[in-house]
Amino acid sequence: MSPVPASGTGAPALRVAQLGCGTVGAAVARLLLERADLLADRAGRRLGLTGIAVRDLSRQRSASEVPTGLLTDDAASLVDGADLVVEVMGGLEPAGTLVARALQRGASVVTANKQLIAHHGPRLHELADAHGASLDYEGAVVAGVPVLRVVREALAGDEIESIAGIMNGSTNLVLDMVARGDTTFEDAVVRAGRLGFLEADPAEDLEGLDAAAKILILARAAWGCDVGLDDVQRQGITGLTDDDFEVARGTDQVIKLIASAWRSGSGAHARYEMAVQPVPLAHDHPLAGVRDGHNAILLETTSAGPLRLYGTGAGGEETASAILGDLVTAARRIAATTR
Amino acid sequence: MSPVPASGTGAPALRVAQLGCGTVGAAVARLLLERADLLADRAGRRLGLTGIAVRDLSRQRSASEVPTGLLTDDAASLVDGADLVVEVMGGLEPAGTLVARALQRGASVVTANKQLIAHHGPRLHELADAHGASLDYEGAVVAGVPVLRVVREALAGDEIESIAGIMNGSTNLVLDMVARGDTTFEDAVVRAGRLGFLEADPAEDLEGLDAAAKILILARAAWGCDVGLDDVQRQGITGLTDDDFEVARGTDQVIKLIASAWRSGSGAHARYEMAVQPVPLAHDHPLAGVRDGHNAILLETTSAGPLRLYGTGAGGEETASAILGDLVTAARRIAATTR
Repeated sequence: MSPVPASGTGAPALRVAQLGCGTVGAAVARLLLERADLLADRAGRRLGLTGIAVRDLSRQRSASEVPTGLLTDDAASLVDGADLVVEVMGGLEPAGTLVARALQRGASVVTANKQLIAHHGPRLHELADAHGASLDYEGAVVAGVPVLRVVREALAGDEIESIAGIMNGSTNLVLDMVARGDTTFEDAVVRAGRLGFLEADPAEDLEGLDAAAKILILARAAWGCDVGLDDVQRQGITGLTDDDFEVARGTDQVIKLIASAWRSGSGAHARYEMAVQPVPLAHDHPLAGVRDGHNAILLETTSAGPLRLYGTGAGGEETASAILGDLVTAARRIAATTR
Repeated sequence: MSPVPASGTGAPALRVAQLGCGTVGAAVARLLLERADLLADRAGRRLGLTGIAVRDLSRQRSASEVPTGLLTDDAASLVDGADLVVEVMGGLEPAGTLVARALQRGASVVTANKQLIAHHGPRLHELADAHGASLDYEGAVVAGVPVLRVVREALAGDEIESIAGIMNGSTNLVLDMVARGDTTFEDAVVRAGRLGFLEADPAEDLEGLDAAAKILILARAAWGCDVGLDDVQRQGITGLTDDDFEVARGTDQVIKLIASAWRSGSGAHARYEMAVQPVPLAHDHPLAGVRDGHNAILLETTSAGPLRLYGTGAGGEETASAILGDLVTAARRIAATTR
């Protein structure tokens, strides 16, 4: 593609169906409309939002935040008339059925649904491949930090030895508050919840379920390995005590919740392991200085050397940025194969 | 594409012509052969190296380092029989003529030649677009750190406000040696040269010409703006004195050679500025701690927040990793449009 934008006005607009309209969905819909010209220039085709499927049409929504005229509760019909589907409803169902329906019709899908991909990614990829569609989900893994694209594309000619990172901002916020000595561990959890930093089910964050889904998705992308959530050794931060933090401080270490994946052996004998667990790190470790709700990922590669990515791993607009990047890529693929 | 590798054995191999066989070229050729199966799985087509064009066939080369049976001095014929061309000869000519020849025939090109892209990138992209070919050059900008892919693809749905980074490892090595108090500035330059860290023409590094080409390429990728090397405000590190380092130390700062680009205004009134210059940074600045020959880049974005990339910005194998990543991407594009 050219760095000088193409006009993208010749061919008809690609029909984009959006499923879900929560925090991420509202940001996606707004940015699709605000950046319509920019996206057309970058994608080579206009991206026309044809509708937004929601569960409950009667719920009050502000027209200044959501294009209410596009709302519908008939998700299936919306999917059936789409070239591209953005799934931001979350949860396994009905998201899974709708994504499969789109792929079976040859429509490409962009989703930020990490649990759906963790549980059903391989099956959905098979469906996509069988029907000439694409399936992308950069937004499912540390939001706007483009680690999945780096693993799947930039390093496609390289080999990844290991992946390690801080992939859950909420637990990092809690651990950082305690490490700074601002508060006790128990109080930090309460404060993070009050600030809206924890998922509706706090176990998602605190027990490492969220980070487990992310490291699983990255391991599959890195190695194409047949692994599932049960293969992730998982220990959250709820078992930590103030004593643990005291000991870490005394040895000039800082406790971080680390998600990691590594390969041992090679070829047919290669084994893949994944873990999420609290780890005391020396202060000069590259992950030790990750503050607040930020995320960071280290990739050890055979040829490119060690790479580090750092950024904001959550948030509606940050996730929407990743989703729009995937949408432009999907639209470029369509533009390239239909010209 | 699927994270589970496709077999890629059905269609005939794509014919890959390589131009040049220096440090980077030898690594590319070796890895193309060593990773042939892996690359076929990832690309969906086998990548068959058909030949390596060199200027002087009589030069001694070790068969253990270079597949000498593939060497030829007829670059034009090699290009004419290729689906994909890897240009790693460097310099403006004959590289420019050969790359143009490939694109005019519809062959996609992967290059690590930053001066060629800095001088002729826009013209070569026009050629590529006109003939349905692609032109990629991740290896031209900080080697294995995938910043160009992040700017061109991951952030394709976002807007980049500014780019700033340490994009030349040699000058960073010199500045780091002095900042650590190991040596004087003059001696550090001599040592870096002796260690083989400086280009054949040291002005490329020391006067910021190398970094200027990189920030120019990034600015064009970020904004599609019509800018050239003359638009980069450039000041190298040769004007620095030991006094400058003394002053920086006294104010707890560290001097780094920073390449930056930023946008002011928007829409039709947007202006783009680029600079390469030594800047004293406070110790807690994210670029202050970049050690030795490492590179780091900060991207300020509208939606994804601030992103940081960090890694090894030079080296034959590191650059080869970027080139192979681009080759797989180019091969995937061909596989997608010809199935």
